[in-house]
Amino acid sequence: MEWISKKSILIVGLGLMGGSYARALRRLGFHIVAMDTNEDSIQYAMEQGLVDQGYTQVEPDAVRNADAIIFALYPGVFREWVREYQHLFKPGLMMTDVTGVKSGIVYEIQGLLRPDVEFIAAHPMAGREVYGVRNSDDRIFRDANYIVVPTSRNTPEAIEWCKSLGRLLGFRRISELSPEAHDEMIGFVSQLTHCIAVSLMTCSNNTHLVDYTGDSFRDLTRIARINDAMWSELFMMNREPLLRQMDLFLDEMAGFRKMLADGDVEGMREKMRLSTQRRALFDKK
Amino acid sequence: MEWISKKSILIVGLGLMGGSYARALRRLGFHIVAMDTNEDSIQYAMEQGLVDQGYTQVEPDAVRNADAIIFALYPGVFREWVREYQHLFKPGLMMTDVTGVKSGIVYEIQGLLRPDVEFIAAHPMAGREVYGVRNSDDRIFRDANYIVVPTSRNTPEAIEWCKSLGRLLGFRRISELSPEAHDEMIGFVSQLTHCIAVSLMTCSNNTHLVDYTGDSFRDLTRIARINDAMWSELFMMNREPLLRQMDLFLDEMAGFRKMLADGDVEGMREKMRLSTQRRALFDKK
Repeated sequence: MEWISKKSILIVGLGLMGGSYARALRRLGFHIVAMDTNEDSIQYAMEQGLVDQGYTQVEPDAVRNADAIIFALYPGVFREWVREYQHLFKPGLMMTDVTGVKSGIVYEIQGLLRPDVEFIAAHPMAGREVYGVRNSDDRIFRDANYIVVPTSRNTPEAIEWCKSLGRLLGFRRISELSPEAHDEMIGFVSQLTHCIAVSLMTCSNNTHLVDYTGDSFRDLTRIARINDAMWSELFMMNREPLLRQMDLFLDEMAGFRKMLADGDVEGMREKMRLSTQRRALFDKK
Repeated sequence: MEWISKKSILIVGLGLMGGSYARALRRLGFHIVAMDTNEDSIQYAMEQGLVDQGYTQVEPDAVRNADAIIFALYPGVFREWVREYQHLFKPGLMMTDVTGVKSGIVYEIQGLLRPDVEFIAAHPMAGREVYGVRNSDDRIFRDANYIVVPTSRNTPEAIEWCKSLGRLLGFRRISELSPEAHDEMIGFVSQLTHCIAVSLMTCSNNTHLVDYTGDSFRDLTRIARINDAMWSELFMMNREPLLRQMDLFLDEMAGFRKMLADGDVEGMREKMRLSTQRRALFDKK
C-alpha cells in the first residue's frame, strides 16, 4: 500500500496561497497542475519545479484529468469558473478552496454544482503581507490553523478528505466550523484587525513619525499593507458579521475613552487587568 | 585619555528598564549603584553582577557619591524622591529619567530642583511585555529609538551628555523633541496603540477564539498584556494628547464602518491603498 496516492491535483489560481499549496503537495509526490492567467506566475512555477504542468488558460484535458481541484481565487472569479467549466469535471471529483469568507460563497457553489462531484470548503489561516507565487512558501502552514467548513450537503468522506489534506499540508491544528460560525470568527480575528490597522495608518498623516515608532506601532500596523481588491471583496461578502464586530470594538474603545476623560483610573485598570488575563491564554498555545 | 570615565552612576528603580541600563553601563566600566525597595530585585542584581552596590533603602552616602542619577521609577514616585533627597546631591550632578510622558513631569522636577544640579529628560523607546530586573536585557536598545527631551532650562552640555548616554546604551537612533511634541507623538505611536490592543481584547469574551487566531490577532494584541498601574498613570498624565489621538482614530474607523455599511467599495479601497503606501515607509527603515 502506498502511503500517499499519486493522484492529480489541479490548482486554479497560482498566487501566494496556490503556490504554497503546490510546493507542499508536489514534494509529497502528487502530480500538480496549475492554471493562472498570469504568464509570469506559470513560467516561474514551471522553472522552479513547483508544478508538473502549468497553463495560462483553461486546458480542458487538464481539468478532465484532475482527481481534486483546489481553488485559490478571489470569491467572484471562483463562482464563475465553476459555473463555466464544471461540465469538464471527472465524476467523483473532490473540490476545496482557500477563500477567507464562507457563507456568501459555499452555499452558492454547492447549489450550482453537479450532483456527482463535491465541494468541501476550507480556510487555511495562513498568509503573508506579500503576494504572488514568487513569495509562496509552505512553511507558513507550520504554526497555522486549518479550518474545514462543511454544510449539511457534505459527506463524511469529503470532510475527512479535506482534513487529511490539511494534515498533509503541514498545518498545526485542524478544526471544523459551520460557515456561519466561521464568518463570525473571521470577522473578529482577521477582518476587524485589518480594519483597525488600516484606520490607525490613515487616521492622521503620521509618516513623519517613522523615526519614533517602537515595536507596538509596527506590530499594530504590519497588516496595514493590504491587497485592496481582495480585502474589500472579502469585507463586502462578510458585511453583517464584520459590522457587528466593528460595533463591539468601537463601543468598547469609546467606553475606554470615557473612562480616561472622566479620570476613572480604577475602571481603566480593571480593563487592563482583564485584557492582560485574557491575552495570557493566547501565549500558552 | 580614557575612552570612558569611570564615574559612578546611581540607578533609582531597578525594574526592567533600570536593570537593562545597569547591564549596559556596568559592562562599559561605570561604577553602578542601584536602589530599589524590592529586596529580591537588589539581591538578584548583586548575585548576577549587574551592579556594584545595591540598596533596598536610600543610602545617603551612595546618593552623595553619584556623578549621575538615572531615574527608572513611576512618575509620581520620581517627583517625591527628588523632593526628599535632593539635599544629598553632589553639586554638578546630572540627572535623567526613562519616563514615558514628559510635559506633566519635566517642568515640575526642573522647577523644584536645586540650581546647581541639572535634570535632562529622556525617553528610551524600548520595552518588553514582561517586567522586573530578572527580565532586563540591554539588547532591547539595539533597534530602538532614544529621545532626548530638553526644555529651555537645559544647558547644551546636559543635552550632549544625555545623547552620549543614549549612544553608550546602544540605541540605534538618537533624536530630540520638546516635551509637548514628545507627548503628542507618544500619545499616537504608543498610548493609542495600547488602548486599541486592550479594547480589542476586552470587547467580547473571545477566549474561545484562541484556537483560531492567526498572526494578525496575535500581533494586534501582543501589547494587551499591560502593567495596569504604570499605564493608567501614564495615560492620566498625558490625558489631553491621548484623548485627541483616540478621537482621530475613532472617527477614522467610524468612517470606514460607514463605507462598509454603505457598500462604498471604492472608498474602502482608497483607504487601503493609502494605508499600504504609508506603511511601506515604515518597512524601509
